[in-house]
Amino acid sequence: MATYSFKLAYNGANYAGFAKQGGGVTTVQGTVDAALAAALRLPDVPTVCAGRTDAGVHAAGQVVSFEVGSELTGDDLRTLMRSLNALTPPDIAIRDLRREHDGFSARFDARARHYCYRIACGATPPVFSAAYAWHVPRQPDVQAMQQAARHLVGEHDFRSFCVATSARMLQEDGRSTCRRVDSVQVADDVLFGEPLLTIDVTGNAFLHSMVRVMVGTLVEVGLGRMPADAIPDVLAAGDRRAAGPTAPAHGLMLVDVTY
Amino acid sequence: MATYSFKLAYNGANYAGFAKQGGGVTTVQGTVDAALAAALRLPDVPTVCAGRTDAGVHAAGQVVSFEVGSELTGDDLRTLMRSLNALTPPDIAIRDLRREHDGFSARFDARARHYCYRIACGATPPVFSAAYAWHVPRQPDVQAMQQAARHLVGEHDFRSFCVATSARMLQEDGRSTCRRVDSVQVADDVLFGEPLLTIDVTGNAFLHSMVRVMVGTLVEVGLGRMPADAIPDVLAAGDRRAAGPTAPAHGLMLVDVTY
Repeated sequence: MATYSFKLAYNGANYAGFAKQGGGVTTVQGTVDAALAAALRLPDVPTVCAGRTDAGVHAAGQVVSFEVGSELTGDDLRTLMRSLNALTPPDIAIRDLRREHDGFSARFDARARHYCYRIACGATPPVFSAAYAWHVPRQPDVQAMQQAARHLVGEHDFRSFCVATSARMLQEDGRSTCRRVDSVQVADDVLFGEPLLTIDVTGNAFLHSMVRVMVGTLVEVGLGRMPADAIPDVLAAGDRRAAGPTAPAHGLMLVDVTY
Repeated sequence: MATYSFKLAYNGANYAGFAKQGGGVTTVQGTVDAALAAALRLPDVPTVCAGRTDAGVHAAGQVVSFEVGSELTGDDLRTLMRSLNALTPPDIAIRDLRREHDGFSARFDARARHYCYRIACGATPPVFSAAYAWHVPRQPDVQAMQQAARHLVGEHDFRSFCVATSARMLQEDGRSTCRRVDSVQVADDVLFGEPLLTIDVTGNAFLHSMVRVMVGTLVEVGLGRMPADAIPDVLAAGDRRAAGPTAPAHGLMLVDVTY
């Protein structure tokens, strides 16, 4: 078996998330796997990804790995990449298809995942970033959000920032809800002339909806509904209800993955 | 009469250009004028803009001015801006509505207009910038484009870079086809993780389709179909057929206007 990987960009709007599902539901993985199988003339080519994004979440640099029985040459890889881009819809793009060492896994070999959440603040809704940013019609206190963000960095039990049923399932399986967050940066940005707030989060791995609950909680702080120094108590509570709401999916993007 | 101005952002995809037209054609100006008239309860509020963009061209910082008979207070302006944003579709946004000195004209007082043209280069079509960038499936020679761009800076007769019928009409009216271009910058950029080439053009005023013909010509140079030092001859020809093709409208954006 030879192992390969590629980078995947997708607009999540038209997909019920990354992970393949049964029952005629359109997913990114289902779409990509079908293109891979067709291009390689194989009945099935199972893929593994770095981060299984939720319905509506975008990716600029998702990483996908797969194994095939035969060795593919440089020409084969160029042809395969062209075929994959031709066989997938315009809201999916495949880049950087390459040979990996044997046994490489886009999921298990990933050391860090970097997500970016975009928020369009202010009375006027955004025109150009509407599909990629959450519109919050007020101007949040960025400094308070930055102060709150610092409490999220480090190794913590992020159970309060996880979909409750997912946390319960992990617990029942005896698996940890601890994760290591390396950095949470809240910054002003401009996209197509429109003011944006970006929240960049990097960490080793994330629980279900963890970045979106972090963002929803930081916005609560920014709008003065929760003090910045309440975050340690939210973490300590170990209860989803202690954190803020889940920010909408379309503001989130998996930016890149470090190996 | 009191004069006011506002900044206008719009996604040009759904509009037959900025300028109002008869016959049920949807234009940006027609849409904005109708919202202004409705919000101010006036039969008609004529507007003037800094740059009449073509069908499909976007604007991040179009400037529009208008006059009304009565003085509007700060509260009136805030209410009017909210009404305008509520009365226009989501692909139009109004910002920075303010009082101007009497007789101010968004068109005649403008000293410089800044346009940005985005090109997505390479085999893989862009996912996130598809609506705002021209996909050129090869990698052009950026240095050659930069060299060619330098020949476009300065005061020139840009007749070769103007829609032929428009140039003829200007000539018949005894009006000049000379324009002053202050800068043409070709640069690499990244948008949502996708590589882009941006061409930023600033000048006092532009002929019909002038930026798009400049971009189409620079891409000819970048792809090796025209030498960089042919630009002076293209200018001297005074003939639209001497320049390259017109780049597609959806890659162009009016960024801002200087007064």
